Amino acid sequence: MTVKILFSALPETWDSYRAHLATALDRAGIAAEVTTDTTAHDVDYIVFEPKGPVTDFSTYPRCKAVLSLWAGVEKIVGNATLTQPLTRMVDSGLSHGMVEYVAGHVLRYHLGIDRYISAAAGTWEDTPPPLARDRVVTIMGLGALGTAVGEALVALGFQVRGWSRRQKDHPTIRCYSGSDGLRDALRDADGVVTLLPLTAATENILGAREMDLLQNGAFVINPGRGPLIDDDALLAALGSGRIGHATLDVFRTEPLPADHPFWAHDRITVTPHIASATRCDTASEVIAENIRRSESNLPLLHLVDRAAGY
Amino acid sequence: MTVKILFSALPETWDSYRAHLATALDRAGIAAEVTTDTTAHDVDYIVFEPKGPVTDFSTYPRCKAVLSLWAGVEKIVGNATLTQPLTRMVDSGLSHGMVEYVAGHVLRYHLGIDRYISAAAGTWEDTPPPLARDRVVTIMGLGALGTAVGEALVALGFQVRGWSRRQKDHPTIRCYSGSDGLRDALRDADGVVTLLPLTAATENILGAREMDLLQNGAFVINPGRGPLIDDDALLAALGSGRIGHATLDVFRTEPLPADHPFWAHDRITVTPHIASATRCDTASEVIAENIRRSESNLPLLHLVDRAAGY
Repeated sequence: MTVKILFSALPETWDSYRAHLATALDRAGIAAEVTTDTTAHDVDYIVFEPKGPVTDFSTYPRCKAVLSLWAGVEKIVGNATLTQPLTRMVDSGLSHGMVEYVAGHVLRYHLGIDRYISAAAGTWEDTPPPLARDRVVTIMGLGALGTAVGEALVALGFQVRGWSRRQKDHPTIRCYSGSDGLRDALRDADGVVTLLPLTAATENILGAREMDLLQNGAFVINPGRGPLIDDDALLAALGSGRIGHATLDVFRTEPLPADHPFWAHDRITVTPHIASATRCDTASEVIAENIRRSESNLPLLHLVDRAAGY
Repeated sequence: MTVKILFSALPETWDSYRAHLATALDRAGIAAEVTTDTTAHDVDYIVFEPKGPVTDFSTYPRCKAVLSLWAGVEKIVGNATLTQPLTRMVDSGLSHGMVEYVAGHVLRYHLGIDRYISAAAGTWEDTPPPLARDRVVTIMGLGALGTAVGEALVALGFQVRGWSRRQKDHPTIRCYSGSDGLRDALRDADGVVTLLPLTAATENILGAREMDLLQNGAFVINPGRGPLIDDDALLAALGSGRIGHATLDVFRTEPLPADHPFWAHDRITVTPHIASATRCDTASEVIAENIRRSESNLPLLHLVDRAAGY
């Protein structure tokens, strides 16, 4: 039997995925017809990105699951017409890219690289930086990405703390949870990385009170979601010196408007939402595997908990 | 019995080591008298740095071994008065610092971080970088430091090649040796890290012909020894675009003179010999362990091969 899949995304996304998805479905042993025609209301699955055309899922009564191409699902999870199971993207390419981005910027701060890039001729202050083992980095969010990032930082020698809504347990990351736990996780840390899902409970979770717990001159790296950080509190903490520098990859409005104060700030580095991207080849395998599971009545991978919002 | 140790180094080095060395000797069960008095010609061991006062070892006839505080021994190995066994410093702190420095700069190049630091407001080119698994980094030198660096880069996902004078074997670093092997190791690499000891055979080992084998726009990181790289060839390769950027920590003359062309070059980052430093606490343990071994007639650790020069 042939399954019918609606690929609801931007045309350029479809161009990138088309061949990879066909290969992945074929390898998973799934005979499939993939369409981008949103008037095909008899589809069995919808592959989804928020920028695509489908907004009303109620018109696809046969659809067994909606498979998000994005790791973050905050733009779809509240859609009242969505009654089907929803899965998030957990892609090894996405995770590798995130690890590389965060490790690169953590080491940049740790080593003070910016100072050498812009050093005046003849500057020779040859005191080496402390070792990573003397630095504490706190990761807010211990999902697939936060955990992978934490493990990579531990491997590089850093002391890593992790905070999550529900208490977790990890052999090398010191785990915290709850609001008392958040204070303990942030207290005297040299830097913080925000990798939480965006929900009503996590919006502005890194605010003035939280930043005030960090070491003076701490760094902030946000490769998660823009609204996790209170922007005004961040600017104030940079002004007071509590935060030494921030690298931000995600913003409330993207692209970040050219007149936004983050661009001009000499202690904020803006990156254009490139910390990590789903890779068409590995992501197609995840989509194909979930369709194979659904057709075999096996539980779906990376199923979204609609009440929790991720 | 008490062993007598001459600490021949700069006064500030002695200040930093004094307490750590006492602790380490005590822990190793060695009753020792440590002096900085170079007229004490009856010493059993000399702890040595090139900047210290001792240059003629023949006046210490009872000395059983010279223990270098430095990893590089090119400034002592050719000393004709040195007839005693000589050991190099292999310090876990040194190795950790080197791994952190190289990983930080490799990731900086891989992610194109400099471009974002200096981006104009409103620049939004949201193509993520390739993954580390698509990059080849070649490490010249597979001693304790080169191997540790290579393993860390492998853990971050990079394809790592390693070159050494004598052929080595490693489970995750692809090993090359000899002059044909050097060409194969460098061919189409995205970047090269020079971590060889400085000998007559390695001076200018990274020259015009070698750089010409790399990918166009490749990076060079030299945290090893200044003369490993042919400076004029590097400037020419930066001019032609063969080399995209270089980060240099070591130089033929240190401090690097303020009028040296490296300082003003917009595609060279100069760091002031801070890639790695011996840490007094862990290095003192290495010194104490070697004295314990010598006193117990056990082979010394990190013994220098005088003919090879390291």
